[in-house]
Amino acid sequence: MTNESTEFRDLNTSPRILLGPGPSMVHPRVLRVMATPMVGYLDPQFLEVMDDVQALLRSLFQTSNPLTLPISGTGSAGMEAALFNFLEEGDPVLVCVNGFFGARMVEIAGRCRASVARLDVPWGEAVLARQVDEALRARPAKVVALVHGETSTGVQQPLDEIGAVVRRHGALFLVDTVASLGGVPVAVDEIGIDVCYAGSQKCLSVPPGLAPLTVSPRAMDILSSRKTPVQSWYLDLSLIRKYWSSERVYHHTAPIGLNYGLREALRMVQEEGLANCFERHSRTAALLWDGLEALGLQLIVPRESRLPSLTTVRVPEGVDEMAVRRQLLNEYNIEIAGGLGAFKGKAWRVGLMGYSCRPENVLALLGAIERILRRKGSS
Amino acid sequence: MTNESTEFRDLNTSPRILLGPGPSMVHPRVLRVMATPMVGYLDPQFLEVMDDVQALLRSLFQTSNPLTLPISGTGSAGMEAALFNFLEEGDPVLVCVNGFFGARMVEIAGRCRASVARLDVPWGEAVLARQVDEALRARPAKVVALVHGETSTGVQQPLDEIGAVVRRHGALFLVDTVASLGGVPVAVDEIGIDVCYAGSQKCLSVPPGLAPLTVSPRAMDILSSRKTPVQSWYLDLSLIRKYWSSERVYHHTAPIGLNYGLREALRMVQEEGLANCFERHSRTAALLWDGLEALGLQLIVPRESRLPSLTTVRVPEGVDEMAVRRQLLNEYNIEIAGGLGAFKGKAWRVGLMGYSCRPENVLALLGAIERILRRKGSS
Repeated sequence: MTNESTEFRDLNTSPRILLGPGPSMVHPRVLRVMATPMVGYLDPQFLEVMDDVQALLRSLFQTSNPLTLPISGTGSAGMEAALFNFLEEGDPVLVCVNGFFGARMVEIAGRCRASVARLDVPWGEAVLARQVDEALRARPAKVVALVHGETSTGVQQPLDEIGAVVRRHGALFLVDTVASLGGVPVAVDEIGIDVCYAGSQKCLSVPPGLAPLTVSPRAMDILSSRKTPVQSWYLDLSLIRKYWSSERVYHHTAPIGLNYGLREALRMVQEEGLANCFERHSRTAALLWDGLEALGLQLIVPRESRLPSLTTVRVPEGVDEMAVRRQLLNEYNIEIAGGLGAFKGKAWRVGLMGYSCRPENVLALLGAIERILRRKGSS
Repeated sequence: MTNESTEFRDLNTSPRILLGPGPSMVHPRVLRVMATPMVGYLDPQFLEVMDDVQALLRSLFQTSNPLTLPISGTGSAGMEAALFNFLEEGDPVLVCVNGFFGARMVEIAGRCRASVARLDVPWGEAVLARQVDEALRARPAKVVALVHGETSTGVQQPLDEIGAVVRRHGALFLVDTVASLGGVPVAVDEIGIDVCYAGSQKCLSVPPGLAPLTVSPRAMDILSSRKTPVQSWYLDLSLIRKYWSSERVYHHTAPIGLNYGLREALRMVQEEGLANCFERHSRTAALLWDGLEALGLQLIVPRESRLPSLTTVRVPEGVDEMAVRRQLLNEYNIEIAGGLGAFKGKAWRVGLMGYSCRPENVLALLGAIERILRRKGSS
């Protein structure tokens, strides 16, 4: 009551072109549907929304896993749900680390009091199946965790061979697809992924706050034979699934508006067609890559390992990377991101995710970068 | 890709009058502002939104606590954040249980491996300061936890005297205000509450997905002297506050659209004035209470302990409570809830929260109940 209401003006943000690592731009159809009035969390109309969201997510994850639903938190909550439910104190887990988010998995697995082994690979490179095989021969693991699309490096991790290795060793395969789901294929059943999660605000172009997750029946068996309770009640999948399945037992109130939005975004992916959607991401990324190289800029990840939805660009010698980003934002309303961790100050990160992933946005960015760097060169 | 897009029709929910325990109805102004296009999570424009949200929350919690922010999850995530950050393995905690949500706190405190003592009071009654004092004399506690507005019973727990008792014993006072914040005064500093959390979807009338939380400097000292890491990385306040304070260190992507909505809802509370907002809740509740009694219905909680934002009504002998609720929803588009736990099948729960809390909604409900019960009586 100390503040006058006049201090807090009408919200009036600039129309940003979001080409960072997420959130991506949200399609007007999704924004509009999120303005639908609330219904109760057990309203038959919301139960239908929940069923639709689950069916649409299964189609996107290319899976028949019954437990496929959005966790009520951002991608990082999805990461915690994935690790918390399948790790108990002392469980051996192998985490592959080739970027910032692999390291985050190590941190969270440690908070599970699991026995964590990490397989480190240089930033900007992919993990090799041979390396995983060697690590598992040296020390078996209950869970092998890795990141499919490292938002910090722009590497797309091949999954097929590693999936086969993990299965051969009898471990659970846990994959972070926060930056990849909806942008490149994630064939959960075909690859044999046991636990897979993503985030609403990347290639799905829904505002942040939901983390789609899918769990294989094999992993569900392991969950149901746990000796200790999951360390988070909020993220306990045994309880959450009772609300999302036909039992409809109240657990916590689902983020209803965000689920409206997720349903609409998933419908749009389906209308476009999964294959077309992935093709748009790779075609638009190629436009960006060629354009950046034509400007004389160097891309950090070799073409064959590049993630279409996130590209890392080396900052040229003598260029103040933050000043360039500030100019992009202030003069052109375009957001890109700086480097994280090992790439801090050395890289720009350009996201092409979901509704942000359009050629007109790429052309605007290329034009703006060209003007900014040329101006700098001539000054 | 197995489903045809035609299976998933346009979202087209009925215009429900939401008089359950939350979510409440969302004001058109809040829905509209949530359709504002996204900006990045470090965009200067979003940082301003964050600062506004924090300032407005401090005003609502009537506190000067620097750490006052929305947790990125529903009210239950707020409960976990509150307990996880201030409990370590073996810590003695006293949880007062007079309803469903007190029991949930016991469950979560157990998952902290804390040493939990519970003070049980019959459902529908308030906890007495004397009882807390006795419990703390018998066994000191690091944290005393209770629920201010029990959504399962409709009891408003007096806080002043218990706050004084807890302070005298040198414990931290942890209060759940999920169903009360915004509907009745929550004077955090005056009462001496150390950890207090709420939910966006109750008296604040924002869609579910955020949990406002405030922490006293005394509690922050205890947090910073922890011996073990908080069991959830996602809910670790030491990390979250670095993003919400001037350091702006990335932790996880905040639910940007929901924060737009929370800011607008808090502005509206401020425009109305806190005192007027509380007065509207109690005046509208009195209209409901008098009206229900005039229909011959019995309210479970004595008037002096009633929570204005949630009322429990005894289901009359021989009435199928679920059939009445189904009729309310299907014939009148009005949602109320059934009983939880000990009150299952025995009570209706009527919420009057935030934008749902208007006399026209009360009159619609009273009229509908009268018609349904009379029709039943005459059949």
